[in-house]
Amino acid sequence: MSLNSGSIRVGVIGGGQLARMMVPPAIHLGLRISVLAETEGSSAERAADMVGDYRDPETVYAFAETVDVITFDHEHVPQEILYGLEARGVQVHPRPDSLQYAQDKIVMRKKLAELGVPIPAWAAVADEAALQEFIDAHGGRAVVKTARGGYDGKGVRVVSAAGEVADWFTALGEDAHGGSLLVEELVDFTRELSQLVARRPSGETRTWPVVETIQIDGVCAEVLAPAPVQNAATLEEAARIGAIVAAGVEVTGVLAVEMFETRDGRVLVNELAMRPHNSGHFSIEGSVTSQFEQHLRAVTDLPLGETALTAPAVVMVNVLGGPAEGPMPVRYAEVLAAHPRAKIHSYDKMPRPGRKVGHVTVTGDSLAEVLAEARATAAAFA
Amino acid sequence: MSLNSGSIRVGVIGGGQLARMMVPPAIHLGLRISVLAETEGSSAERAADMVGDYRDPETVYAFAETVDVITFDHEHVPQEILYGLEARGVQVHPRPDSLQYAQDKIVMRKKLAELGVPIPAWAAVADEAALQEFIDAHGGRAVVKTARGGYDGKGVRVVSAAGEVADWFTALGEDAHGGSLLVEELVDFTRELSQLVARRPSGETRTWPVVETIQIDGVCAEVLAPAPVQNAATLEEAARIGAIVAAGVEVTGVLAVEMFETRDGRVLVNELAMRPHNSGHFSIEGSVTSQFEQHLRAVTDLPLGETALTAPAVVMVNVLGGPAEGPMPVRYAEVLAAHPRAKIHSYDKMPRPGRKVGHVTVTGDSLAEVLAEARATAAAFA
Repeated sequence: MSLNSGSIRVGVIGGGQLARMMVPPAIHLGLRISVLAETEGSSAERAADMVGDYRDPETVYAFAETVDVITFDHEHVPQEILYGLEARGVQVHPRPDSLQYAQDKIVMRKKLAELGVPIPAWAAVADEAALQEFIDAHGGRAVVKTARGGYDGKGVRVVSAAGEVADWFTALGEDAHGGSLLVEELVDFTRELSQLVARRPSGETRTWPVVETIQIDGVCAEVLAPAPVQNAATLEEAARIGAIVAAGVEVTGVLAVEMFETRDGRVLVNELAMRPHNSGHFSIEGSVTSQFEQHLRAVTDLPLGETALTAPAVVMVNVLGGPAEGPMPVRYAEVLAAHPRAKIHSYDKMPRPGRKVGHVTVTGDSLAEVLAEARATAAAFA
Repeated sequence: MSLNSGSIRVGVIGGGQLARMMVPPAIHLGLRISVLAETEGSSAERAADMVGDYRDPETVYAFAETVDVITFDHEHVPQEILYGLEARGVQVHPRPDSLQYAQDKIVMRKKLAELGVPIPAWAAVADEAALQEFIDAHGGRAVVKTARGGYDGKGVRVVSAAGEVADWFTALGEDAHGGSLLVEELVDFTRELSQLVARRPSGETRTWPVVETIQIDGVCAEVLAPAPVQNAATLEEAARIGAIVAAGVEVTGVLAVEMFETRDGRVLVNELAMRPHNSGHFSIEGSVTSQFEQHLRAVTDLPLGETALTAPAVVMVNVLGGPAEGPMPVRYAEVLAAHPRAKIHSYDKMPRPGRKVGHVTVTGDSLAEVLAEARATAAAFA
């Protein structure tokens, strides 16, 4: 870290909107940020100093030579490359030992079980017979997930017969790495919560207030910060679990712990993400320190910032799909005029049904009012 | 404007911290921003797509071909070039007809007089005799300013005899353009106020709450938003003047109207700046819409955003000089740990006595508390 020269260079692998949203706080703090993007015209194009394949070791090692620390827009960089970077003396955050839990859902479930945090009943199943046995033992329905590569509802199916994921077993059989599918009980949840945590290599940890996330078709659609209090003990339990997981997986950077609140009042961990996360976008305007600024502080091992909310109610609504005519600015003349309070974020992506092309955040005193305004603004881009 | 394609390209002439701070809102809104910087390694280096001399017409015209609208980090682009851009069909905001008032203090005083807003007694003086006459008629002391090129206290002298600016008269005599110095009465003011206004080409105008600015040696040191109310009528008068000036000079973009509040309760206009201004840096965290976002909206003729403050008290303190060892990040390990609430902005500039290398903003409920925290944070970089 070239902190003593006043120049700190952060390299981000992946050129999506998460890398893009790290750029503003890097500019404000005076950190130098570079992005290794997959393609020209990526969402983080402005900061992309290099375009190349993150699965190619030499590409990643060459990129790493231009920066002081490597971090990520996504969790897909192969472990061999991550360990290769560390072997070359490169600072990598989160570290590969931690990142494995976000890369493989079965490895994650084992770790969560070991940490003793509450999770849905689960099993790693290598064939249809084992899967059917689990389904039969858990009420005749279950959730099956691919261990790797799933996101935003991809790689997730609710099934009542093992044959419904026969194609996934076939694909596993053809994969040199082989492996299993993850099956989980279908949780009877009333809502979903997310606990964002940031942790530095030196161990300092800060958490944001627990938020409620509302998913549509497996994709995060809305986030309410703070999560409306239905039962204070539940939110305390969610925060407690978030802290245990952050310390247990020794994350460095931002961690999102997504949880179910069950009908019978329990909190169960659903997923982990080891990077800034959609459930934390509200924090750009809604928290004293945004998740993107905090992630930069954490991966450079700088002291973490205050995470209090900036208003009693903060709502983030994703813009999914977007205008048929083109990127979000095609609607700015009407939408900005109608919604002067809304903070509008465009990822500079071409619209496509269901694609996250941006988000809207509104802050204020009344959740009902703020929610209505954020929803109306996002809807105006549809 | 290529609004219909969803791509809006803004070109900023000048690579200083104002251009730098336009980049984050451009990223969030999904606008494309490019900077014509004077030198390599400028404050806005990240966004600098071109390095060249803004006094060279061909350089500026070539830059303009890559964008939809031209705006500015400073007011020093020669009028011939600005009119040359317009003659080529380039959108320029603010327009040269407006920008002349920020480029020449004598032209500005004439315009303000014509608009009927209160200003200090003034005269344009072409020689020492005329200056001495003004000084004698205004209590034996006066403020002399060069009409062009002054900023941050440069080009301003308080004198009691005309001979104290003999060098400036000599320089004017050697200048092919000739011209006069501006002389003004020494105003007995109790504090300084600033009214930020944004205005679109279509005429829509939004103002932020009037702020108090505290100068040290002619350089803005602190800004209190909103200005503490000593007399509500005074703040209303400041807002009224700001609106008249914005409409009168037909600004497009952000305008700062700097004013004196006099001991006898009057408000007099001191200076104009036709761009985001140091007195508006508080708005990055302290207002729903920052001056940088608003400037981008205004120059692209998009609807303007809400300008309410995000907290009852917002204080911005400049970091002047900075650490002896290097840019501000050399102190981050200590300063961020001690001041987790403070929002720290580094312009990535090498420290030099008196140089603005960054600023700190703190928001909260109590002015006294927020002011103390912002001052302590900024002081920790000294």
